[in-house]
Amino acid sequence: MTLRSVSRPGTAVTSEGARDITRSLPEEVPVALVFDGSTQAVMMATPSDVADFALGFALSEEIVTDLAQVADFETVEHDRGIEARLWLRGGASAQLLERQRRSMGPTGCGLCGIDSLDAALRPLPRLPLGPVRLTRAEVASATEALRAHQPLHDQTRAVHAAGFLLPGNGIVLAREDVGRHNALDKLIGAMARGGVDASKGAIVLTSRVSVDMVQKAVLAKCPILIAVSAPTELAMRTADEARLTVAAFARAGGFDLYSAPERITDGASDVA
Amino acid sequence: MTLRSVSRPGTAVTSEGARDITRSLPEEVPVALVFDGSTQAVMMATPSDVADFALGFALSEEIVTDLAQVADFETVEHDRGIEARLWLRGGASAQLLERQRRSMGPTGCGLCGIDSLDAALRPLPRLPLGPVRLTRAEVASATEALRAHQPLHDQTRAVHAAGFLLPGNGIVLAREDVGRHNALDKLIGAMARGGVDASKGAIVLTSRVSVDMVQKAVLAKCPILIAVSAPTELAMRTADEARLTVAAFARAGGFDLYSAPERITDGASDVA
Repeated sequence: MTLRSVSRPGTAVTSEGARDITRSLPEEVPVALVFDGSTQAVMMATPSDVADFALGFALSEEIVTDLAQVADFETVEHDRGIEARLWLRGGASAQLLERQRRSMGPTGCGLCGIDSLDAALRPLPRLPLGPVRLTRAEVASATEALRAHQPLHDQTRAVHAAGFLLPGNGIVLAREDVGRHNALDKLIGAMARGGVDASKGAIVLTSRVSVDMVQKAVLAKCPILIAVSAPTELAMRTADEARLTVAAFARAGGFDLYSAPERITDGASDVA
Repeated sequence: MTLRSVSRPGTAVTSEGARDITRSLPEEVPVALVFDGSTQAVMMATPSDVADFALGFALSEEIVTDLAQVADFETVEHDRGIEARLWLRGGASAQLLERQRRSMGPTGCGLCGIDSLDAALRPLPRLPLGPVRLTRAEVASATEALRAHQPLHDQTRAVHAAGFLLPGNGIVLAREDVGRHNALDKLIGAMARGGVDASKGAIVLTSRVSVDMVQKAVLAKCPILIAVSAPTELAMRTADEARLTVAAFARAGGFDLYSAPERITDGASDVA
């Protein structure tokens, strides 16, 4: 089993001088995401919750739309990395092959498998307004609540987390990773595998909100995204169009609200 | 010309209530990196210094080893993104085509174009110890010195930067981007285009140090990496093997030193 963190000796230098230290550093390994025997992506990731990661990646990249499309899964640990092997049922495999044929080459962070500018800004569904509401107090305390679910960050001060906040219930599920995209994919996969309905609450992030985080949340049908740091303008235009509520800079008891504010109330929460 | 940041109205919520605000958010656009007419990657990036970005990406991904291998460059702005088109001289194009043939599919953040686990941990040269030295005081103040070169971050509080620190001269060049990998690629491209020899100083980052940041620094022949945040264990093993000096958690006048400490002195700097 690959470790999630490793103790490393070093030297801490301050204005008072230098002293020997040992710091717990997060591990990072290449994880190959292999669908029906073909590698779709290699991501540098924290070696934990690999099944959640693989399924979440498949959902976020629209390789599958449902857990039921995955026929089988296995993890193979190699010396230099981990293979996550998924076998898909008939329809999904055919779709994936078509997509591979169209693909000219590799693509960047969070947008794997899509090599054109238009495809990078793929169309998203518009989220229903629905009955889910969070109070301002729940949003304001969400990232602090997530802190209790970040054991690897407690050790290393260096990894991201994504959690799921259920109105009236706090953070019910969380996943960590050195990469913010991976942490969110792990959470989305864990929710799908655990039967947690993402449309009933909010995703909480330790990171900024770039457009790919919005895309992942919307495709998971989650109506509210709460993040400790800033959104990009493109992320906000995309959130507006998809009617995703984004609360950014959520820390120290406050937050900024930039889109679909109807879901945040100043009173009691309304659990669907 | 695509803007680098946009003013967006929102609502700031605190325990005292809600008030209307306008916040400057960083823009983010898909940038297609197109070599000899074929898209190698689409990265979400800040729309600035695109020529630096494209060349830095080409160097970091070992598509070219030298500026001289780029025959021509142009930027084409589309409605939904930017195309950075590079034309390579004969040898480099052939190598790229061979690599495309080997590539089975797209890959993740910072490791574009490589689809196997072994390839993700590509072999790196071992940096010569050389004459470059930094004083502890220079390292301890490096990330604060970089702050003076982050105008977009001053506006948005949301973008990364990478700068080049020349011993005795401070930060001589810096680039910003919503993505930490992109900021570093832009810096590496800007150094190559400006004739700044990366082997003479240190790269300074506002981010964590993952293995891909180490790979980029080593391939740029830069011997010292200074970062405001934590390294991963894999990044440190890789830095050890390549003899790259990594100073992490560099802030508030101190830092941690984890590899190749010979290049950091407690006295005067030694400019090569």
